[in-house]
Amino acid sequence: MTDFSFNYKTFPHTKARIGKLETPHGTIETPAFIFCATKAAIKGVSPKQMRDAGTQIILSNTYHLMLQPGGETVHKLGGLQKMTGWNGPMLTDSGGFQIFSLGHGSVSSEIKGKRDSKHPKTMLKVTEEGAKFKSYTDGSIHLLTPEIAIQTQVNLGADLIVVLDECTPFHVDKSYTRASMNLSHRWAVRSATEFNRITRGDQRLYGIVQGGVYQDLRTQACDFLNSQPFFGHAVGGSLGASQEQMYDIVSYTMEKLCDERPVHLLGIGGIRDIYEGVQQGIDTFDCVHPTRLARHGGALVRPCHNHGKAKEHINLKNAAYTLDTSPIEPDCDCETCKNYSKGYIQHLLKAKELLALTLISIHNIAFMNRYLKAIRKAIESNTLEQLKKDWVQTP
Amino acid sequence: MTDFSFNYKTFPHTKARIGKLETPHGTIETPAFIFCATKAAIKGVSPKQMRDAGTQIILSNTYHLMLQPGGETVHKLGGLQKMTGWNGPMLTDSGGFQIFSLGHGSVSSEIKGKRDSKHPKTMLKVTEEGAKFKSYTDGSIHLLTPEIAIQTQVNLGADLIVVLDECTPFHVDKSYTRASMNLSHRWAVRSATEFNRITRGDQRLYGIVQGGVYQDLRTQACDFLNSQPFFGHAVGGSLGASQEQMYDIVSYTMEKLCDERPVHLLGIGGIRDIYEGVQQGIDTFDCVHPTRLARHGGALVRPCHNHGKAKEHINLKNAAYTLDTSPIEPDCDCETCKNYSKGYIQHLLKAKELLALTLISIHNIAFMNRYLKAIRKAIESNTLEQLKKDWVQTP
Repeated sequence: MTDFSFNYKTFPHTKARIGKLETPHGTIETPAFIFCATKAAIKGVSPKQMRDAGTQIILSNTYHLMLQPGGETVHKLGGLQKMTGWNGPMLTDSGGFQIFSLGHGSVSSEIKGKRDSKHPKTMLKVTEEGAKFKSYTDGSIHLLTPEIAIQTQVNLGADLIVVLDECTPFHVDKSYTRASMNLSHRWAVRSATEFNRITRGDQRLYGIVQGGVYQDLRTQACDFLNSQPFFGHAVGGSLGASQEQMYDIVSYTMEKLCDERPVHLLGIGGIRDIYEGVQQGIDTFDCVHPTRLARHGGALVRPCHNHGKAKEHINLKNAAYTLDTSPIEPDCDCETCKNYSKGYIQHLLKAKELLALTLISIHNIAFMNRYLKAIRKAIESNTLEQLKKDWVQTP
Repeated sequence: MTDFSFNYKTFPHTKARIGKLETPHGTIETPAFIFCATKAAIKGVSPKQMRDAGTQIILSNTYHLMLQPGGETVHKLGGLQKMTGWNGPMLTDSGGFQIFSLGHGSVSSEIKGKRDSKHPKTMLKVTEEGAKFKSYTDGSIHLLTPEIAIQTQVNLGADLIVVLDECTPFHVDKSYTRASMNLSHRWAVRSATEFNRITRGDQRLYGIVQGGVYQDLRTQACDFLNSQPFFGHAVGGSLGASQEQMYDIVSYTMEKLCDERPVHLLGIGGIRDIYEGVQQGIDTFDCVHPTRLARHGGALVRPCHNHGKAKEHINLKNAAYTLDTSPIEPDCDCETCKNYSKGYIQHLLKAKELLALTLISIHNIAFMNRYLKAIRKAIESNTLEQLKKDWVQTP
């Protein structure tokens, strides 16, 4: 069995780095994008289609899987990689993010500085022991502790797993953020203890940097994580209320984190965001964006295919595409762009055919993998400036 | 360009036959099953996955496509085969079936002898000119005439197209059935005239046998069709209120139809129904059954995999499969059975993941293609009795 390792290469004049993250299920070339198979499936896309689109690694959400079908069932079905037929590298989160973000009335908008009152609050209480919440499936009451988060993730069997932390919303004050960070650190220690107690040796644990928008707290969080024997680090918590503030916080955090471990930026997946993150030395990213966008008819395109608009995608429902026989991107080699026109995909969207989701998702997934591949090449050849012109919309 | 032809081979002791139906988009080995890509897409399955599952031919519904995106749009997008990326043989129906069956308050239950009052009636009036109906998309009023049905199908561009007929429900009396059949014959002549006027030579026209459950009317319908220069014949109209009555009507009709043309049995796709149809000399079948069944968690299996039950499928939502690590059929070579367990598929169904539909559909499609392939082999080797034991549930 291949063991775990992370080796990276640095270059003069940039903090961006390329690396190889080895896992028992395969090697991930970094920087890499991790796609969200929330409930142990990428919505509308098969593992074979994921691989054909150049995917290296996917993640599943512990929160969803602990409720349906349950960690033990996944274990009995062979673990995530085998059960899903993906058989490649996987990551699971701790379950905390969904509980807290749903708890505060939103899913992912909080870390990006948006409030959301549409979703019912399902998080009931945070105590030293853990977080009590209502199941999204049947309303039953559950407790997630650091130990249960680790036990569940060990059952799920992903290669890379993470500690339980409290995810604070962006609008809490510094005193709450500090107390929460300290709680997260105690939970991180308990997570690591439980991991060491029950690990079968085929998984590795990531710690999570909290501290919100406060530099001194981020410093404390980084000092804490650097002192602990985690395999990798994930940058979490509130990243502020604007893109610029996020880049500042990430930049500051990356200066304080030790170099040797792979660093994951949680829940961030915009084209420009990834470019900026890579510039700070981030190794992996994840976000539902590419597949969620597909569900709404949005196809990722480079600036040269976006008709001068400032968005990172085109809307395939636009009437301009009704009779368009050309693919989303003429120079894209994904299954969708090789075989289907924008006009046909618009028909599928209007007819509410599931194939629309599949075809746009395949393009968006291939697009992200192509983008990250171009980033790796640009880091190595010191052409990140040119890559920015080719791939990143100027705001 | 390959032209159209139909060559068949007969055998002593059986009316079943094997054939080759050549079209400009490929050759169909018969008996064959035609899958329903109603709105120019198989629900949740890509053309590549269709081909990998052994599919020879698919059909689309003129009714749906004339309303969205419209025949001219499909034509401008390259025609059905190119637009959908299928690039293989296709058939379209006339649009009549949906109008009349929706009009009588049902979709397909009528031809199988079931009444259905759940669906709103959208057919407004049948006259000599055609059928007036309300659009299912926006309630707008449309007229479908034999000429429009042909014009639309010529725009859609399928290889095999059909005349417009009136589909009568099973509960109408003989006098209505006779008048309706005669109207359908006049519409068939008008359809053929319009087809000859506008055809580009790359399509062939099927006539439809009406006459309901009445032998003398079926005889008149067959005499009429045999006298017309149609490329193929489709058996339509009410086939009675029971499986046995359907087999009788098909048997009687097949005795009266001339041998040289391919014969399609409209809307029939049960495992036993196909076996009985093949025995009467039917060459092609179509039905939404395999893909609709998949949407409800039903997977087609041979009797040896059905735990002694009398159904042609298993229900993957059944609690017995929650921890089942085996595939739907251990000896099936489809993508689904090679890679996924019943337990995982059940999880996907419970989690409402679209991939469930995709995976079960792929199996059901591969199952049908495997079944029809086995039928062709059994006809040739005179082993239909053994095939029946292996594939057909005894009621």
